[in-house]
Amino acid sequence: MIPDSCLHIRGLSDDRIHSFLSLAASIKRDPQKYSQTLKGKTVLQFFVENSTRTRMSFEAATRKLGGTSVAFAAASSSLQKGESLLDTIQTLCQYGIDGIVMRHSSGGSPEFVSQAVSVPVINAGDGQHEHPTQALLDAFTLLEHWKVSDFRGKTIVIVGDILHSRVARSNIHLLARLGAKVILCAPQTLLPSDLSLFPAVEIEHRLDSVLGQVDAIMALRIQFERQDDSLIPSKREYRNFWGLTVERMAALKKDTVVLHPGPMNRGLEIDPEVADSARSLILKQVENGVWLRASVLAQLIGGVKP
Amino acid sequence: MIPDSCLHIRGLSDDRIHSFLSLAASIKRDPQKYSQTLKGKTVLQFFVENSTRTRMSFEAATRKLGGTSVAFAAASSSLQKGESLLDTIQTLCQYGIDGIVMRHSSGGSPEFVSQAVSVPVINAGDGQHEHPTQALLDAFTLLEHWKVSDFRGKTIVIVGDILHSRVARSNIHLLARLGAKVILCAPQTLLPSDLSLFPAVEIEHRLDSVLGQVDAIMALRIQFERQDDSLIPSKREYRNFWGLTVERMAALKKDTVVLHPGPMNRGLEIDPEVADSARSLILKQVENGVWLRASVLAQLIGGVKP
Amino acid sequence: MIPDSCLHIRGLSDDRIHSFLSLAASIKRDPQKYSQTLKGKTVLQFFVENSTRTRMSFEAATRKLGGTSVAFAAASSSLQKGESLLDTIQTLCQYGIDGIVMRHSSGGSPEFVSQAVSVPVINAGDGQHEHPTQALLDAFTLLEHWKVSDFRGKTIVIVGDILHSRVARSNIHLLARLGAKVILCAPQTLLPSDLSLFPAVEIEHRLDSVLGQVDAIMALRIQFERQDDSLIPSKREYRNFWGLTVERMAALKKDTVVLHPGPMNRGLEIDPEVADSARSLILKQVENGVWLRASVLAQLIGGVKP
Repeated sequence: MIPDSCLHIRGLSDDRIHSFLSLAASIKRDPQKYSQTLKGKTVLQFFVENSTRTRMSFEAATRKLGGTSVAFAAASSSLQKGESLLDTIQTLCQYGIDGIVMRHSSGGSPEFVSQAVSVPVINAGDGQHEHPTQALLDAFTLLEHWKVSDFRGKTIVIVGDILHSRVARSNIHLLARLGAKVILCAPQTLLPSDLSLFPAVEIEHRLDSVLGQVDAIMALRIQFERQDDSLIPSKREYRNFWGLTVERMAALKKDTVVLHPGPMNRGLEIDPEVADSARSLILKQVENGVWLRASVLAQLIGGVKP
Repeated sequence: MIPDSCLHIRGLSDDRIHSFLSLAASIKRDPQKYSQTLKGKTVLQFFVENSTRTRMSFEAATRKLGGTSVAFAAASSSLQKGESLLDTIQTLCQYGIDGIVMRHSSGGSPEFVSQAVSVPVINAGDGQHEHPTQALLDAFTLLEHWKVSDFRGKTIVIVGDILHSRVARSNIHLLARLGAKVILCAPQTLLPSDLSLFPAVEIEHRLDSVLGQVDAIMALRIQFERQDDSLIPSKREYRNFWGLTVERMAALKKDTVVLHPGPMNRGLEIDPEVADSARSLILKQVENGVWLRASVLAQLIGGVKP
Repeated sequence: MIPDSCLHIRGLSDDRIHSFLSLAASIKRDPQKYSQTLKGKTVLQFFVENSTRTRMSFEAATRKLGGTSVAFAAASSSLQKGESLLDTIQTLCQYGIDGIVMRHSSGGSPEFVSQAVSVPVINAGDGQHEHPTQALLDAFTLLEHWKVSDFRGKTIVIVGDILHSRVARSNIHLLARLGAKVILCAPQTLLPSDLSLFPAVEIEHRLDSVLGQVDAIMALRIQFERQDDSLIPSKREYRNFWGLTVERMAALKKDTVVLHPGPMNRGLEIDPEVADSARSLILKQVENGVWLRASVLAQLIGGVKP
């Protein structure tokens, strides 16, 4: 039997999503109660694509549950010597591990791996496909902030480089599932050409058109390492049309909140004054990321029942 | 007094070899019994040459015995600033360590270090010299599979790049010591020019000549990073003459087994169908590597009596 | 309230300095007593500039107090993606850490960070500014060796690349504070052009002039990575005028001792025979570094009262 994994939002049942969210709240409320949940368990942090932030977040979550992390450093690894991904993973599994947290530059590779191993696999970002725990922690942060249990009646805009963003892809699916009205706002060149695989969303090319009607803005990072600069006219133009500037913040409803998955390009997609304002949930997102990931690890690897 | 170390197969007594092998079996049978053997002990993983696999195996072994690993990353180290190897090691020893697992690109360097420190040194591969724990885990895997206590009456062929292989060098010594008839099979250019320092072995240039008579085949990895491609006529020719192909497997005795130290170049020295077949002990080798290394650590650092 | 940090010698009170030194002696005498001091605490090892030695020393100190280290690897981090230093640090703080050990190539950055976070910050070397724990461990080593409680009546010469050395800068302040007469000995090109910010020191350009009068010599490392070779006439000239050669050692008082912060360039700033002689406290420095850093961690993060 293939063990339960967390590969993409699409593949998670509503029950599973709600249990991830509610256990995260329980762990956050009483971390001591869960401090032995992964005692004696070893979690492989398999990051073939660099990510200090996400890896450290999963390691912190593992540590809070009393588990041990083992990091696999791709740069100095046998993958460099031409070994296949599957041989590498199956080798690592022989060292005695209880679960795999995996980031990879190819979309679908965590799913591929999950079919070949006998331990749970948690997708920590695969190419431009999905980043499910980021979407879950974003949802957790909004639910907590609004003190609600779903997003019915809420309007949320995702602004920025949606085309290259696995964060956006996971969030679109999750926000819609939880009842939000989702607006995507980006230059045409940074939108997927085919939206038919997504739930119903609205498209707006100008951020200014939606400012007064949204309850939350999710800014995305301009990922210079993933794109040809020519997709945006210029950094200044980008900021002029889609940046979360001080001026735009003044046009928001007074309790609209701002999220960003980090790392931020301050002064480009978000002004420093916005990032550091009372509207910003950005540091909350980072903190909640640890609790949410602890919830996923506790259920999938630690055997905690929802 | 210089503490007991594990530097090369030649330097290990028969008693020591048998105690390493038998304790590995005990730990594998009842790991719980040994889970505190290295409690409070710190093992320095000193890898000056990259090796994610071997390092992770030793770290897993240390973890299973309740010990702590400290990794030394050469790439970002004071060795880069021109410090001598001995100064580096003596500095690291001041941090309070109980043993050193060491990989280095220069043959003999673990022996050199062992004479200057007061803790046990375990050779995890030194240049083209030896890799004793790999040979021990290979022997352990074959003894376990065959349910025997030595290799008398068994014929084992080592095929591939013997010239550059510390794995082959350690295995030749160990297999012969345990009573096996050893055949080396390689193109002339990949054989050592002087075999007089080795125990008696047979030489065969064509793998096809020996297929029907061997009980085990140890394939070696073609180490592109260690050799000039011109030593083999071409990858295709190599596979044609010395690769473990599906066709060759059909010519083996029905219970002949196949080993490979990893990482594999699938389709070159070994066909995927062979690597994944019931004949293959390759994943067993990886698993047993942890138990065998735990045995070495337990005896040399943990003070477990054989 | 900003928590107590250890940013530079100038900023430490006399009481603080003495309590760091005396607790280090207590921990060294009875490490078992302090083995749970950091239990449940996580120390972020934030090294934006490479330093295997110092990082491993702080990690060993953390381990001896029962704490957990989390290493931040700048090379593969979000700093590479353009994130600001402060955003990176504030993100890391959300993962649940109790203190920060920080090395950075820019002088003043630990102080900058300490004003933005709510946990103690320990400077592990910032640019060419200070390296306070190195000065403290040097002082600890000399006090221990001489069995004294301050340096009144002692003369100590610091020889070498003072211009680029944060070790020298911290030592000048600390040695003077503890009552030593401090001599700086270097070619004019390796001395700071303005000494007015330092306590009173003597300047000597020729090492031979001071050999007979000093109680300790602190050699500095020639930091080839920090300077243009043209600042010293040649390696041979440097050794001739400022190297701790065998010949110079013969001209010292019989109980004068030698220190070096490592890593050493043997044969350049110090002869191997000197480094390995009975006069040398170099390995003691490394060992004491762990106890001294444990003392700093225990007081600032572990809440141990002096």
